[in-house]
Amino acid sequence: MDINSLDQKITARSREFFTSISGEAPSIFNKGWWTGKVMDWSMKNENFKVQLFRFVDVLPYLTTSESLSRHIREYFAGDDQDVPAVMKWGALGAGFGGKLTGVILNRTIRTNLESMARQFIIGENVKDALKTIKKIRKDGFTLTVDILGEATVSEMEAASFMEMYLQLLAALEKSYKDWHAIGDDTLDWGHAPRINISVKPSALFSLTDPMDFEGSVTGISNRLIPILRKVRELGGFMRIDMEHHRFKDITLEVYRRLRASQEFRDYPHLGIALQSYLKETDADLKALLAWARSEGLPISIRLVKGAYWDYETVIAKQNGWEIPVYTIKAESDAAFERHTRMILENQDICSYACASHNIRSISAAMEMARELEVPEHRYEFQVLYGMAEPVRKGLLNVARRVRLYAPYGDLLPGMAYLVRRLLENTANESFLRQSFAEAAEIDRLVENPFTTLVRIAEQNPDKARPAGARSDRFVNEPIADFTRREVRDGFVAAITAVRGKLGATYPLVIGGREVVTDDRLPSVNPARPQEIIGTICQASTREIDAAITAAAQAAPAWQALTFAERAQYLVKAAAVARRRIYELSAWQILEVGKQWNQAQADVAEAIDFLEYYAREAVRLGTPRRMGTSPGEINLLSYQAKGIAAVIAPWNFPLAISCGMSAAAIVTGNPVLYKPAGPSSVVGFNLVEIFREAGLPAGVFNYVPGRGAVMGDYLVEHPDIALIAFTGSMEVGQRIITRAATVRPGQRQIKKVVAEMGGKNAIIIDDDADLDEAVRQVINSAFAFQGQKCSACSRAIVVEPIYEKFRERLVQAAASLTIGPAEDPANSLGPVVDETARKSILEYIELAKQEGKVLLSREVPATGCYVPLTIVEGIRPEHRIAQEEIFGPVLALLKVKDFDQAIEWANSTRFSLTGAIFSRSPEHLDRARAEFNVGNLYLNRGSTGALVERHPFGGFNMSGVGSKAGGPDYLLQFVDPKLVSENTMRRGFAPIEATDDWIN
Amino acid sequence: MDINSLDQKITARSREFFTSISGEAPSIFNKGWWTGKVMDWSMKNENFKVQLFRFVDVLPYLTTSESLSRHIREYFAGDDQDVPAVMKWGALGAGFGGKLTGVILNRTIRTNLESMARQFIIGENVKDALKTIKKIRKDGFTLTVDILGEATVSEMEAASFMEMYLQLLAALEKSYKDWHAIGDDTLDWGHAPRINISVKPSALFSLTDPMDFEGSVTGISNRLIPILRKVRELGGFMRIDMEHHRFKDITLEVYRRLRASQEFRDYPHLGIALQSYLKETDADLKALLAWARSEGLPISIRLVKGAYWDYETVIAKQNGWEIPVYTIKAESDAAFERHTRMILENQDICSYACASHNIRSISAAMEMARELEVPEHRYEFQVLYGMAEPVRKGLLNVARRVRLYAPYGDLLPGMAYLVRRLLENTANESFLRQSFAEAAEIDRLVENPFTTLVRIAEQNPDKARPAGARSDRFVNEPIADFTRREVRDGFVAAITAVRGKLGATYPLVIGGREVVTDDRLPSVNPARPQEIIGTICQASTREIDAAITAAAQAAPAWQALTFAERAQYLVKAAAVARRRIYELSAWQILEVGKQWNQAQADVAEAIDFLEYYAREAVRLGTPRRMGTSPGEINLLSYQAKGIAAVIAPWNFPLAISCGMSAAAIVTGNPVLYKPAGPSSVVGFNLVEIFREAGLPAGVFNYVPGRGAVMGDYLVEHPDIALIAFTGSMEVGQRIITRAATVRPGQRQIKKVVAEMGGKNAIIIDDDADLDEAVRQVINSAFAFQGQKCSACSRAIVVEPIYEKFRERLVQAAASLTIGPAEDPANSLGPVVDETARKSILEYIELAKQEGKVLLSREVPATGCYVPLTIVEGIRPEHRIAQEEIFGPVLALLKVKDFDQAIEWANSTRFSLTGAIFSRSPEHLDRARAEFNVGNLYLNRGSTGALVERHPFGGFNMSGVGSKAGGPDYLLQFVDPKLVSENTMRRGFAPIEATDDWIN
Repeated sequence: MDINSLDQKITARSREFFTSISGEAPSIFNKGWWTGKVMDWSMKNENFKVQLFRFVDVLPYLTTSESLSRHIREYFAGDDQDVPAVMKWGALGAGFGGKLTGVILNRTIRTNLESMARQFIIGENVKDALKTIKKIRKDGFTLTVDILGEATVSEMEAASFMEMYLQLLAALEKSYKDWHAIGDDTLDWGHAPRINISVKPSALFSLTDPMDFEGSVTGISNRLIPILRKVRELGGFMRIDMEHHRFKDITLEVYRRLRASQEFRDYPHLGIALQSYLKETDADLKALLAWARSEGLPISIRLVKGAYWDYETVIAKQNGWEIPVYTIKAESDAAFERHTRMILENQDICSYACASHNIRSISAAMEMARELEVPEHRYEFQVLYGMAEPVRKGLLNVARRVRLYAPYGDLLPGMAYLVRRLLENTANESFLRQSFAEAAEIDRLVENPFTTLVRIAEQNPDKARPAGARSDRFVNEPIADFTRREVRDGFVAAITAVRGKLGATYPLVIGGREVVTDDRLPSVNPARPQEIIGTICQASTREIDAAITAAAQAAPAWQALTFAERAQYLVKAAAVARRRIYELSAWQILEVGKQWNQAQADVAEAIDFLEYYAREAVRLGTPRRMGTSPGEINLLSYQAKGIAAVIAPWNFPLAISCGMSAAAIVTGNPVLYKPAGPSSVVGFNLVEIFREAGLPAGVFNYVPGRGAVMGDYLVEHPDIALIAFTGSMEVGQRIITRAATVRPGQRQIKKVVAEMGGKNAIIIDDDADLDEAVRQVINSAFAFQGQKCSACSRAIVVEPIYEKFRERLVQAAASLTIGPAEDPANSLGPVVDETARKSILEYIELAKQEGKVLLSREVPATGCYVPLTIVEGIRPEHRIAQEEIFGPVLALLKVKDFDQAIEWANSTRFSLTGAIFSRSPEHLDRARAEFNVGNLYLNRGSTGALVERHPFGGFNMSGVGSKAGGPDYLLQFVDPKLVSENTMRRGFAPIEATDDWIN
Repeated sequence: MDINSLDQKITARSREFFTSISGEAPSIFNKGWWTGKVMDWSMKNENFKVQLFRFVDVLPYLTTSESLSRHIREYFAGDDQDVPAVMKWGALGAGFGGKLTGVILNRTIRTNLESMARQFIIGENVKDALKTIKKIRKDGFTLTVDILGEATVSEMEAASFMEMYLQLLAALEKSYKDWHAIGDDTLDWGHAPRINISVKPSALFSLTDPMDFEGSVTGISNRLIPILRKVRELGGFMRIDMEHHRFKDITLEVYRRLRASQEFRDYPHLGIALQSYLKETDADLKALLAWARSEGLPISIRLVKGAYWDYETVIAKQNGWEIPVYTIKAESDAAFERHTRMILENQDICSYACASHNIRSISAAMEMARELEVPEHRYEFQVLYGMAEPVRKGLLNVARRVRLYAPYGDLLPGMAYLVRRLLENTANESFLRQSFAEAAEIDRLVENPFTTLVRIAEQNPDKARPAGARSDRFVNEPIADFTRREVRDGFVAAITAVRGKLGATYPLVIGGREVVTDDRLPSVNPARPQEIIGTICQASTREIDAAITAAAQAAPAWQALTFAERAQYLVKAAAVARRRIYELSAWQILEVGKQWNQAQADVAEAIDFLEYYAREAVRLGTPRRMGTSPGEINLLSYQAKGIAAVIAPWNFPLAISCGMSAAAIVTGNPVLYKPAGPSSVVGFNLVEIFREAGLPAGVFNYVPGRGAVMGDYLVEHPDIALIAFTGSMEVGQRIITRAATVRPGQRQIKKVVAEMGGKNAIIIDDDADLDEAVRQVINSAFAFQGQKCSACSRAIVVEPIYEKFRERLVQAAASLTIGPAEDPANSLGPVVDETARKSILEYIELAKQEGKVLLSREVPATGCYVPLTIVEGIRPEHRIAQEEIFGPVLALLKVKDFDQAIEWANSTRFSLTGAIFSRSPEHLDRARAEFNVGNLYLNRGSTGALVERHPFGGFNMSGVGSKAGGPDYLLQFVDPKLVSENTMRRGFAPIEATDDWIN
């Protein structure tokens, strides 16, 4: 059959389908009901939709009448929104009838929203679910049951999720034989098991992470196997659901391993789901079918369009990745038809579940199956419970084999599930919305999506073309996409390669020449102290003098270049670092114990600093005309300050070193770079990068050294104009004080750019989304062992939510894995060195005295490990709440209310980062105004600032108010110069285009 | 006769005139000649025109072949200009024929340009001039002779200029009887004296200044009288020329006094000139005619359009004054006809000289005279020598009575005069250019200018309307326009009023309450130390504590306001200061000895700071979205640092105090303001201003005090977050050092904004325009007695020009007047107090040891006066060349070349201001790059920075690189804050318009 003829049949069937259900609408769009009204308002008003969906999201947390009323007011009382009257009345509290009416109205709002949620789930517990199942089956539908749950943040939760499935299966076991028969007595439609469950795999292992691909596959499989055993015992069917793209390859691998395992290869009722909106699905599907054929294993695929489009798109954009999903709806529709055909053509090895509400897509599946003569038992149709009732009814009439995807679970995850369904139904391109709410022309709804694409391309040639590279604008270097095998392999190979280079001796580099000294220090792998990364020559004051001379000699030529010319060296250096990104990451993994992703983020940040400061330099280097007066041209420009000392920390060993150095260099200040002792070899990476970029000799001088020997000398040297420092408050204050005294021969007041410590708090409000909050606090407090100035070291938790948060947090922390960073299975590694270890251990002892230790993890016996520690009962006056620990130690502070949370958060001398998890618009606003830190994060963790997007730095004792990676940073490295030229001679002044001239 | 009929006659006569000269063109436009070619190029290419005119201007200074070649290359060798080949060849040196050809070509260029200049003058000395006169008279023209001269910068030069006129008259006396008779034997045309001279009055008195109106009138008159006596002796005619608008009222007054004086009231041959392009001329002319009639004194008026249009317009724009000239050419043309008519209608009392090359204007005069039946001997026509030959020829034929305005003098002023003539002839709207170079339609050329205006208004309604006030943009407060009598009277009245308020006791102001202390200090008038300006209560550490408490109490509410809300208080304060500007100036005149204009400039700068920082605060207060990633909103904003100490100097007692305070206040930092002791009463003015503006109590606290008692305490106080200081290097360094140590209870690293001293140099290059250079060095070194951090204290002079510069400089300094600042006749006043006096006297003693004192002026015996001192023979190693003196002491440093000039200029620890006078494009470029100061001025003095246009401040030991009145200033008073909100919840992120979203 040719394509055109098939398409005509599909179109005809689609029209017929529409005709058969004409006049009916899904209950969700029924405006006679509250739900329909809400949907109608949401579709008309984007702002209300946002507020409503956010309110739905927070609603299960609003356990008191006060809290409910407050949130309704905060979300809906604003003047600027087109809020429906019923919400407004609730929000305003009073209205007609006084306060009581408000309370009643608010209860009504809650009840109505909760019953909206109940429309989509078959019950809040097994008992209710079983009742609903019975009822549904009477209507002739089969089901696949799915358990809703909160996000899994710990192994305890993952295990408990597994238990819920086992309990569900146990309950089904007791009842399924009594169910209304569909088809013959024991099998639905004569071939399908009555018991059919769907499982989200990532919920079964809390550490699922593409970076640890193997560990994730194993972790998930280990919990899927008991479930699958039970399913097999009952002769049931299990489908492994497909979730976010991030987990896709892991899920496919889990499926293949289970399906092909000795234990289960003979059991055919294990299926998987694929998402047509993913660009990779063509290849994945082809590979999966080929695998099944080569293994001789029948498989089953549920094909969906995909439910996380917004998420996938936003995350990809945020991370600088190619968007994994199609950006035009018709592309996904076309892919769905293409994938359907591929599966049906392989029906002998693969059974098919067509999961779509789109009548065109469904019709296409039907007509293709007919054309390919696919036996009826090889394909079925699936729709979501609670949605698209006319479609499911129509399907039942035509295709008979209709399975409802039927979730059940608590209202808390139920409300979250509601948000996803609302989003789906209110999206502009939603087929259901267009079909039933907007009554779009049937011609368009049944159109071949490929035809649609051709039309879009013709109407808007740009739409069909990928956005071109915009090299003129700064773009963050993408963080590693560990879903890609070549990335994971890249890390393994780089670690091996770097390991082959360990143990070398590193000279100083002064004026482009390598200088060897007798005083040397080793830098070791903190996970295996016997492994020497390198031996580093140490500078004495003599070498500092030499380096200053070299810098002074290099200065005139370097400063004679324009900002734009100097910027080109940074761009070249960025290219070098980008090319060597795996290797540069590997050095950090071994020298300071950074996890793969942490190390890659550091190198990416170094690249960002180079690219961003290059562009900033061009901006700063363009003189500005001041005023518009005729007869004078006033140009404001900037010039280098002189020679810069860059004193760097070890915790972001490449990024911060590179950022401070690049800023100094691009503005014309030759640099003496003193890396931190524990990261001196990574520091030498920077020498190599600048060398390869062709930076002239003497512009960047590498002078590692002992602080006690040359630290003060460097800072106090009369020829040092500028000191860029990142490190502890104590050292920072010492530098600031010493730099402030003018010494003989000194020509300038020294400028000190100092980033110092933090004692960062994350506030957990009583309505915080704990799924997010727990994960982010864990990450902020313990990633890279808490050795970040931005790390969270205080979690300030409002009383009503304290117990629940503590429980989930401690369990999550208890689930983390600890060991060498080179193994991606480890969540935490060693701290940087013995000094750090001792200091942190002292704080842990102190924690035991000041509070109650909730968790103290065991750690490997060799290597610089300290136990991950969580301590509660801490108050602001405790040292644990005031001093920077710089290790994996987290204090929990319980506060009575939000006021106290802000007060306690602000109770230290530091003001670096802070975060708050809250879904109260008013509390978020108050945090903006009152939470006194340089970098404040709302509903995200306190670490991970990106160049440009999150200019980084604090004030008070956290620093001098500079912000690295921000628009004001380079200003600190320059002196301004105003050149005013009187252009009038003998009464004659040329008039410039920018003059404020007469008329 | 009705207007229409007259206009028809004028038009007809104009056409006839054109016909009579058809085919002829002024020699200047004759393209067969070099001159014509140059004019042609200039009219075609604006850029070449600028370069050419500037080159003509500098040409007389190029006394060596090397210097000539270098300048030709610098002016004409650039690639980007459409430079005619002949200039290019010269510029490139080589060309065909090699280097020698280049030298010859360059000589040719010089010769050609010099002969262009000679076209416009009747000789370079009296002898040549007399020859030309004889020749011209043979052609039937009479003359008025004018002596060209350099600008008069000293009384010696003024006296010498007078002498030149007397010598001219003596020469004329010997020869005039031999001249070709025009009309009868002794009088030209039967009624006009043969001897006729024109005199520029301002050249006769070097201190001519509208601020000292009386002194200027007397000074000029004193030198005019001897000339007029000689003229009368010879029976000749003297015309007082009209120069810049600035001198207009002085000139009119000089004329009226001389004309009505006992000695000359009987001698009718004294005339004046008026300029029709001045908007005030209608009133001036009316008043002058009325005066003549009331006095019964016949007068004579030469009417011109006016020759300084560019200058008047640019200067008015620069100073914020209403433009005094008409901005549309036709307005001047219409005014000329209107004024002509007024004069001719009063021909019985006023004879008329019609001085225009415009055929329409000339024809209008002729027809009006005919209509009004003016006797022929009551009017004549004047044209410039060397210009518009066809017009003068036509005039001779028709009107007979044609007088040529005939300048003579050195080529140096001759070349300057050439620039003015070239400018006139190449202006787009030049009648001669349109008539003879462009052959515009005669209809348009002879059109009634009133008709032209109506047409312009119809075509472009905006053109005819004055530009509206643009209150949104920052505009500098105008400097005082002392040409206006009400301004001069305002100062006199304000000084009287303030004198009535002297002697009060001034309390501290803390938290809005006045606090009286027992420790008090008087502030006295330095010109009369017995006159007590006020007695000021002094703060002890107790009051500092109280003020910090008050500031801390005021902080939360003040910081809760938006930047825009706080800015409104500054705008209100500016309005208060603007209203009280005379009074505020008067306080400074009496308390610190500022001259009127210096005091007004200080108050205007205070107003500028208020208005500018208000606008800057609004800009800074608008959060910036960082990055465009979807799913997150990152806003970068700024917030106050805390409590600020403002430690102010006495030399700009209101401006700097106000600027530093306003910056702190508008950014949210409550202020403790410590005025300098000698200007504490002016400091209290600021209290009054902010109080009237409604600033909340505690935001601005007035705490004068003894540095030794509370200085360190204030700086070191742990609650002071921010110190804004302007003063000496020594105190600045002390503050920086002391502020850098963190003390118990201190929460933040203190920010110090420090403006310190200067040791500013002005370089005088060998091609400097000395007319400008001498005046500007005098002003930069001695205005307000040199008590400015921007003051020039070193003049670095290149050897070839040294002698000439020294001579003119010393004479200029010797001409200055010294005495109390309240008398506007005094150029210099006292220094601020006894301490300053003693310190400066010590430096003067040192100057005598280190160099040779060229000038040491006598000063009044009482009051804090020090002798104005100029010392030569100073080298960089001398203390006089290194230390800030802060008084009227100027060192001359002779250097061998420009390289050494730059080297010596940069040889101090300071880098504040600097200036260079040079007409070498390459040297100016080198200065831009190598003259290492914060504020560099090209061809203007080193003082007088204006807010916004000249952001002010230095680096090295001159300060920390801040620039007051510039776009980066407020950044120093704030901490940055980045708030990053994760807007994604449950996979749903609202998409913002500014997101970088798919396609």
